[in-house]
Amino acid sequence: MREHSFITDYLKNPYSSVLSVSGNTKVITALSLDMKVPPHVKSGGWLTAEYSLLPGSTNVRSARERSKISGRTAEIQRLIGRSLRMAVDLEKIPGITMLIDCDVLEADGGTRTASVNGGMLAVAIACRKLADEGIVPENPLKNWIGAISGGVIDGKVVMDLDYEKDSRADTDFNFVFSENGNIIELQGTAERVPLDEGRFFELLKEARICVKDIIAEMKSIAGFTK
Amino acid sequence: MREHSFITDYLKNPYSSVLSVSGNTKVITALSLDMKVPPHVKSGGWLTAEYSLLPGSTNVRSARERSKISGRTAEIQRLIGRSLRMAVDLEKIPGITMLIDCDVLEADGGTRTASVNGGMLAVAIACRKLADEGIVPENPLKNWIGAISGGVIDGKVVMDLDYEKDSRADTDFNFVFSENGNIIELQGTAERVPLDEGRFFELLKEARICVKDIIAEMKSIAGFTK
Amino acid sequence: MREHSFITDYLKNPYSSVLSVSGNTKVITALSLDMKVPPHVKSGGWLTAEYSLLPGSTNVRSARERSKISGRTAEIQRLIGRSLRMAVDLEKIPGITMLIDCDVLEADGGTRTASVNGGMLAVAIACRKLADEGIVPENPLKNWIGAISGGVIDGKVVMDLDYEKDSRADTDFNFVFSENGNIIELQGTAERVPLDEGRFFELLKEARICVKDIIAEMKSIAGFTK
Amino acid sequence: MREHSFITDYLKNPYSSVLSVSGNTKVITALSLDMKVPPHVKSGGWLTAEYSLLPGSTNVRSARERSKISGRTAEIQRLIGRSLRMAVDLEKIPGITMLIDCDVLEADGGTRTASVNGGMLAVAIACRKLADEGIVPENPLKNWIGAISGGVIDGKVVMDLDYEKDSRADTDFNFVFSENGNIIELQGTAERVPLDEGRFFELLKEARICVKDIIAEMKSIAGFTK
Amino acid sequence: MREHSFITDYLKNPYSSVLSVSGNTKVITALSLDMKVPPHVKSGGWLTAEYSLLPGSTNVRSARERSKISGRTAEIQRLIGRSLRMAVDLEKIPGITMLIDCDVLEADGGTRTASVNGGMLAVAIACRKLADEGIVPENPLKNWIGAISGGVIDGKVVMDLDYEKDSRADTDFNFVFSENGNIIELQGTAERVPLDEGRFFELLKEARICVKDIIAEMKSIAGFTK
Amino acid sequence: MREHSFITDYLKNPYSSVLSVSGNTKVITALSLDMKVPPHVKSGGWLTAEYSLLPGSTNVRSARERSKISGRTAEIQRLIGRSLRMAVDLEKIPGITMLIDCDVLEADGGTRTASVNGGMLAVAIACRKLADEGIVPENPLKNWIGAISGGVIDGKVVMDLDYEKDSRADTDFNFVFSENGNIIELQGTAERVPLDEGRFFELLKEARICVKDIIAEMKSIAGFTK
Repeated sequence: MREHSFITDYLKNPYSSVLSVSGNTKVITALSLDMKVPPHVKSGGWLTAEYSLLPGSTNVRSARERSKISGRTAEIQRLIGRSLRMAVDLEKIPGITMLIDCDVLEADGGTRTASVNGGMLAVAIACRKLADEGIVPENPLKNWIGAISGGVIDGKVVMDLDYEKDSRADTDFNFVFSENGNIIELQGTAERVPLDEGRFFELLKEARICVKDIIAEMKSIAGFTK
Repeated sequence: MREHSFITDYLKNPYSSVLSVSGNTKVITALSLDMKVPPHVKSGGWLTAEYSLLPGSTNVRSARERSKISGRTAEIQRLIGRSLRMAVDLEKIPGITMLIDCDVLEADGGTRTASVNGGMLAVAIACRKLADEGIVPENPLKNWIGAISGGVIDGKVVMDLDYEKDSRADTDFNFVFSENGNIIELQGTAERVPLDEGRFFELLKEARICVKDIIAEMKSIAGFTK
Repeated sequence: MREHSFITDYLKNPYSSVLSVSGNTKVITALSLDMKVPPHVKSGGWLTAEYSLLPGSTNVRSARERSKISGRTAEIQRLIGRSLRMAVDLEKIPGITMLIDCDVLEADGGTRTASVNGGMLAVAIACRKLADEGIVPENPLKNWIGAISGGVIDGKVVMDLDYEKDSRADTDFNFVFSENGNIIELQGTAERVPLDEGRFFELLKEARICVKDIIAEMKSIAGFTK
Repeated sequence: MREHSFITDYLKNPYSSVLSVSGNTKVITALSLDMKVPPHVKSGGWLTAEYSLLPGSTNVRSARERSKISGRTAEIQRLIGRSLRMAVDLEKIPGITMLIDCDVLEADGGTRTASVNGGMLAVAIACRKLADEGIVPENPLKNWIGAISGGVIDGKVVMDLDYEKDSRADTDFNFVFSENGNIIELQGTAERVPLDEGRFFELLKEARICVKDIIAEMKSIAGFTK
Repeated sequence: MREHSFITDYLKNPYSSVLSVSGNTKVITALSLDMKVPPHVKSGGWLTAEYSLLPGSTNVRSARERSKISGRTAEIQRLIGRSLRMAVDLEKIPGITMLIDCDVLEADGGTRTASVNGGMLAVAIACRKLADEGIVPENPLKNWIGAISGGVIDGKVVMDLDYEKDSRADTDFNFVFSENGNIIELQGTAERVPLDEGRFFELLKEARICVKDIIAEMKSIAGFTK
Repeated sequence: MREHSFITDYLKNPYSSVLSVSGNTKVITALSLDMKVPPHVKSGGWLTAEYSLLPGSTNVRSARERSKISGRTAEIQRLIGRSLRMAVDLEKIPGITMLIDCDVLEADGGTRTASVNGGMLAVAIACRKLADEGIVPENPLKNWIGAISGGVIDGKVVMDLDYEKDSRADTDFNFVFSENGNIIELQGTAERVPLDEGRFFELLKEARICVKDIIAEMKSIAGFTK
């Protein structure tokens, strides 16, 4: 696993913000509050995410998505939003939407998992702040979650793939676990060779260990573990 | 598992087409050939999918996606395309794109898995036809694949969720396996309660059995098993 | 004239729905209710229509209209909506919009007239249902209408053109009549040779006869004639 | 019929241009040449039209169509293009597209017929110029065509409706005839009361007379009649 | 300086309208009232502008901006709106938006300055009318403003550039002054050679003189000077 | 003037990149090469710029521009592109486009001038690198340019406005000068009070001094001054 680090309060203006670093991958996750919820929300609050690559973040320049977003972007930001909604008890933030902006400064593999992790820390900080400031009566944090990618290269399980490894992998999985190791989200594709059960169990096991470490790292950052 | 059935040659014009039925869910999958490939394809051919709900297919009318597609649609059609690309040896259809149109007539849960299954059969028929007609030298079919959804309701594993069950499920998974039970694509979300390992293994096991049956059913339809 | 047939309750979810068949042309017309009206409607209710070709419905695959609709689609769905608004007394459905979705499964000429006819039957069923269910005090049906296409090929008048004939026709007209033979909508173009008055009168006369038969067929379907 | 007049060479830059006036309705029709044809044109040339209302042309300001065009605009510009294609022998302008821009300065009813008429004169002038300048070997003009609207108000046939009359009409027709009175395009809608055959024949007859006059007027403008 | 002239009440429907002519450049500026203001306006009224080239206004046909507007258009209409907001005391038109439509009939350089000047006269007329009609208690006109372009060609300062001169200029400035010669808006670019201070002061001085004349001309048109 | 600083090679992937800091404003400017030019470029190369605010960069979250860009964004990126084109001899980079991406991390006033300055340094580095790597025969750098904003607050000239000052300013100018003090681009608006000549000359003089300092600072960063 590459080194994972987090810089909190990276931006001045958002309600909370984190620079999430995994190896050479760097993602700014910024949380803003919107004091209303989308029409489909009948009770409680909401959390949603947006994801974008800076044009200069990638090897070959990524064109801005100014007339419509790609399917890849849509898929990634839905995964981030779904995962982070499991971190918050939405009933405890009635009428409030948490909007998580994930902007990738440097992309070297694992941008979606770095976004989930940075987003998690931004959510935890925001939840504490909401309660501290009396905007909601109690801290709405429900679960700590963490994410990691993994794949199979030349028959071997490899975690936390950088861009070069990701390009060579036969299979590519993203795992999101809760702190106690339960599954929050799991998405994987055999890109070249169908994946046998044995390798998959190995991937799952390794991923769970990695995520445990990442959550511990995150909690130590902003004084969540005493 | 609900009843799965397939009507081949459902439409006159496409290169191959299948009506895929799972319980009350009905999806038309139509395969067209395009004798060129997108720019990112450097060798071989390509396969891609599009997915759409007919406005009248759902409980509450689904608005047409005429100015942009939703994130949900983007995510689903990417899953279908990725899965079906594992069914074909793309190197054996150089310069050819298979375009799979999945149009949902009636939606009662499991539209994406019904799309993958109907698409699989349309692909198998098209592959045989391509070889028979001498457009390509040999049948490019590589794997039979099949898909099923599953979830956990009130702590119990339930397969092939209809709309009503899907609304109550704590967790919602989609599985795509190859004929021999290896994983092609796996996507799941804990929508209410994180999923423990035991339940997940149960889901995985049940899904593998269901998919085996579905593939057998598909192969018997158009004379692929003698 | 090709055989015209109608299957009612073709879909489960819409308020009413009809599969309209003319020769090899098949269109699903589904009617949904929206309990509000657009801003330009100052009194009474409204009726509007949308039209779309399934990608696999045509000889050469029709691309989905996902960023904007074509002029052809706009023109067709406006004709369908205008025609069907003459079937309903909109003052008798205050605050209600009937939305008619016309989705073409198979296109072999005459898709717009098949849409008008299927839509007419869906409207008649919905009107009866609205009154039966007490949503409106009396059945708002005002006129039965019907549609047919016609053209001139090699100097001869031909009705209900299929795709092959339509391609050869010098002129191409669509007629919508009320049950008693008055004109509801008339749209025609000389595509190769200007049309002389004599031929036009012949077309008009034949069309009126065809539409009379189609309306009789529709009324017999769902017990509207005793 | 209101007074119809035409000012040729109204703009400096287009290949030909005409200000077409019908009562208080004023439309600039400008013809540009594009030395290529759209992909669907297999032999000969092409002619197409665009139509737009200036925001200040209407009673209540018309919003600019900057993200998409309305169905009404699509329908009108298709009618103009179809009609004017009957005026030109497209085989005689191989590889050339005539693009007719119809921009409405003042709208007081009949903007689509004023566009067809102004466009006809612009086409005639351009055809003569193409031959004079040796761009094509012979004048490609095939037919003179002309357009007029008509309707039924309080049971009486009225031609060339202005905005106020158009709002009161039970029925609203647009007629395009060739110089010898054959039908080029015919589009009509019963907006309140279905139209009986007698009234329709009266409309048709009146329209033919009006168009004869308009074509005569147009031909006299730029020396087409000696 | 080319001849500048103004025709008031050029269109029938807008609240006020002016044809603004500078040499061969002709722009219709039409002012409509909207009895509401955009959300960002917290007190008083608002004024905004839209700018568009007719397709036939330019040397080479300008394509319509139907799916999005160009950066050039955005930049120009923002300059027009900003400048004209300085002409009106917005606090005196509470809840009212003045919308200025600038449609270029003929473009021969200086279309944005002709738009500002025509817009100014339309605004002055509308302000007087608003007070005369008692819609607002007093005439909200605050400043007369006027605009001119200028550049440097072969080292010499030239004002009011036509298209041909504009193409040859090393530098291209647009000036908007108030009646007493203060700066309202100033926008300039060295397109080939950076501009030295001396030349710039010369440009500024000439522009101020030109604008004084243009404002005098405008005020004489509609009886604003007695 | 606030402190201006520059961090070169801020991102790994672009051809050159700079973090441009002015007080609390931070902009990433990244330069990518595209080995082709847009169709309107008849000889030499091209340079263009894109500008975007990160959602979390501003006081109130800025919505992403995913369906179209705002007029403000269009105006700013055109100013940046025009200014930086004066820094490069485009004839010396035939067939090459320099694309400058300006992404604002933190916005506290002066984002467009910080973009021009960061872009200038990125351009200078890229020009040297192009020559060093032999991609072009000689260093294509033509001018060093620099930008600063300035305004008038309570009758006093203030340079390099932060957000709070910008909100209070009567007038708001942006200046781009070449190293020897000639004008490259000048854009200013009197937002409340027309600006008299005296104040404007003061602004111009101060701006020239500030830009001289900024250019000196930039040149010292990457060893351009020895």
